[in-house]
Amino acid sequence: MKVLVINCGSSSIKYQLLEMDNETVLAKGLLERIGISGSKLKHKKGSEKYEISKDVANHKEGLNLIISTLKDEELGVIKDTSEISAVGHRVVHGGELFASSVRINERVLKEIEANAFLAPLHNPPNIQGIKATIELLPDAAQVAVFDTAFHQSMDPIAYLYAIPYNYYEKYKVRRYGFHGTSHRYVSARTAALLGKPIEELKIITVHVGNGASIAAVKYGKSVDTSMGFTPLEGLVMGTRSGDIDPAIVPFLQEQEGLSPKEVTEILNKKSGMLGLTRGQYSDMREIEDGAIAGDSICKLAHDIYEYRIAKYIGAYVAAMNGVDAISFTAGVGENSPYLRKNVVNKYLGYLGIELDEKENDCKACEKFISTPDSAVKVLIVPTNEELVIARDTAEIVEKNLNELNLW
Amino acid sequence: MKVLVINCGSSSIKYQLLEMDNETVLAKGLLERIGISGSKLKHKKGSEKYEISKDVANHKEGLNLIISTLKDEELGVIKDTSEISAVGHRVVHGGELFASSVRINERVLKEIEANAFLAPLHNPPNIQGIKATIELLPDAAQVAVFDTAFHQSMDPIAYLYAIPYNYYEKYKVRRYGFHGTSHRYVSARTAALLGKPIEELKIITVHVGNGASIAAVKYGKSVDTSMGFTPLEGLVMGTRSGDIDPAIVPFLQEQEGLSPKEVTEILNKKSGMLGLTRGQYSDMREIEDGAIAGDSICKLAHDIYEYRIAKYIGAYVAAMNGVDAISFTAGVGENSPYLRKNVVNKYLGYLGIELDEKENDCKACEKFISTPDSAVKVLIVPTNEELVIARDTAEIVEKNLNELNLW
Repeated sequence: MKVLVINCGSSSIKYQLLEMDNETVLAKGLLERIGISGSKLKHKKGSEKYEISKDVANHKEGLNLIISTLKDEELGVIKDTSEISAVGHRVVHGGELFASSVRINERVLKEIEANAFLAPLHNPPNIQGIKATIELLPDAAQVAVFDTAFHQSMDPIAYLYAIPYNYYEKYKVRRYGFHGTSHRYVSARTAALLGKPIEELKIITVHVGNGASIAAVKYGKSVDTSMGFTPLEGLVMGTRSGDIDPAIVPFLQEQEGLSPKEVTEILNKKSGMLGLTRGQYSDMREIEDGAIAGDSICKLAHDIYEYRIAKYIGAYVAAMNGVDAISFTAGVGENSPYLRKNVVNKYLGYLGIELDEKENDCKACEKFISTPDSAVKVLIVPTNEELVIARDTAEIVEKNLNELNLW
Repeated sequence: MKVLVINCGSSSIKYQLLEMDNETVLAKGLLERIGISGSKLKHKKGSEKYEISKDVANHKEGLNLIISTLKDEELGVIKDTSEISAVGHRVVHGGELFASSVRINERVLKEIEANAFLAPLHNPPNIQGIKATIELLPDAAQVAVFDTAFHQSMDPIAYLYAIPYNYYEKYKVRRYGFHGTSHRYVSARTAALLGKPIEELKIITVHVGNGASIAAVKYGKSVDTSMGFTPLEGLVMGTRSGDIDPAIVPFLQEQEGLSPKEVTEILNKKSGMLGLTRGQYSDMREIEDGAIAGDSICKLAHDIYEYRIAKYIGAYVAAMNGVDAISFTAGVGENSPYLRKNVVNKYLGYLGIELDEKENDCKACEKFISTPDSAVKVLIVPTNEELVIARDTAEIVEKNLNELNLW
């Protein structure tokens, strides 16, 4: 069965076409600058790379271009769109209703739309993508895979904020957490690599890329995670502040005359590593290079980045009263031996962790990087959200799970 | 030497008169409802308690009443105000300038006034109290003891927020931390009880009362603390939210049409345990009683309170890469065996901690509550901020430390 995985951002579409019989990627790509002049499609078929420059006005035109490319004689991998049995859509916010992936019908689409106020930047393009795909591939099954679903196992103890309770009732203000597909995949792979049932393990998954979040996965369930009501909370990110004293928000509004929208924009787009490096860098590779080369601003920013990760790991060890394994994933987590070494060696020795520095000196490998004697195992586990989306989609179609079991 | 300790709130004055030759409290009391009708002075001389009802219009009138009471023939303990050699003032915000207590002169007073924008609720009454005391006791030395000073040892790694750096330069937006006098006293007592130099110890001090904060005290220095730019950040408190996703602030402003001032007020006065219990309780004794009696709302609120303490303890163990002792203090920390037991037994077993439940069953004792074999020691250490203020004051006067060493 061939499954198309779609991830629609506000001005971009990421896609992969997978053959699920052997879980191989037939083609994948990224369309950027939708609705902005200079749109470009980067398409990959096996090891062959193509670039198509063509202005694309909206998500429907974009998906049309992607589907045409997939069945193009030279660039494509299918003869007819009927070969695409199902489409798996990444949807950012599933609210409290979606604790697992679901086949999309009108009611599901309505619920996703109803959650759009919780993720005003993310859910609307997801919805546009779903609607366009339904039109373009009317015979394919459509499945939604939510970034929040894996964290729906959290207890109120972890998801309630200590604010007036009626804000939870009225606006559903609570911790949701994001990157759920990644935390789910990485925790499952970690258990597999440990050769133990996930139901017996306490795992901390450290997803640090451009966005960044940590999850405490106890006995296979997410019990806490650092992103909250929105993806702003938690770790320091490229341009997002992560945790701050909430009183800073109204303080800055008053001092600088900022509207709620403007202060939100500053905390999401001008803060994080960009803010700490005085507007110079948001890319961790540049900051790491700077830190290693002795740039004091980069060094301090990187120290803070590490420190905040270490504190969350420590907090989640307490949350689970212990930990068996800590897995690093995503852009920075997979590719930065420097980050992993600093987090582990500076802060986590008390857990009886011993890092194998030779094993750690590796990028995007799936492996143990702690010594065989280490009391807690440390791993690199490259994430694969597209594979999880494709698997969920194939499973729902194969088992003919048409309805959300809630209804 | 007799030292008067003064703590001015917006509508209250707490005081103690101490004989420093033997560190005994001669008299103490609390004046409430200043500037509100129905002002009342509760005064204690040894074990004798007195109440004086008399309307008091402002802090100067209030201090005048207190000083008159202290030299009253029946209620008093001194014959003449000249017996008061020095006055130690609790000042909430010392900003970045004051890393220790200081004798007050015009320049110091100006600097405290310059910090008032950082603590608009707290510094102005502190300043009023200082000015009135100078007028009323012109011959006494005046000393300021700052709630922030102990935490000035934090590194930028702990005190910088990941927001645009110019907010730190322009408005000094950073973590300051509060309850410093308490964390300093409790960590020093903890080292004394352990019989080891504080320079060799990693201590976590858990100050949970009406306000609540935790500090990581490494080798005698505060390296991190949960309160931040203001006392709002960190743990769940009686009516303060503690940590939340900062994006919740502008979200609520937009949904509810709240001004920056109004949302600040809600997060400080209507949140925390009061918010979680749907406006019912902010007093931990009531919530604990409810939780034990099986009230599900109180139970959940208490569970959240414990969980958040445990996560901070875990984070600070990582911050220091280990911990030797954890000390509970302040109203709740000293008086709630239930809280201490739950925090330690539910979450901290992985540290090799064993709680001695019999020892733990004690209120306001100064003692170990972990077993002799416990890998990390757990203690109750009743705090005594007034004593620290009086000691600092006496020392500065005795050593004739007139000038802030910075100048």
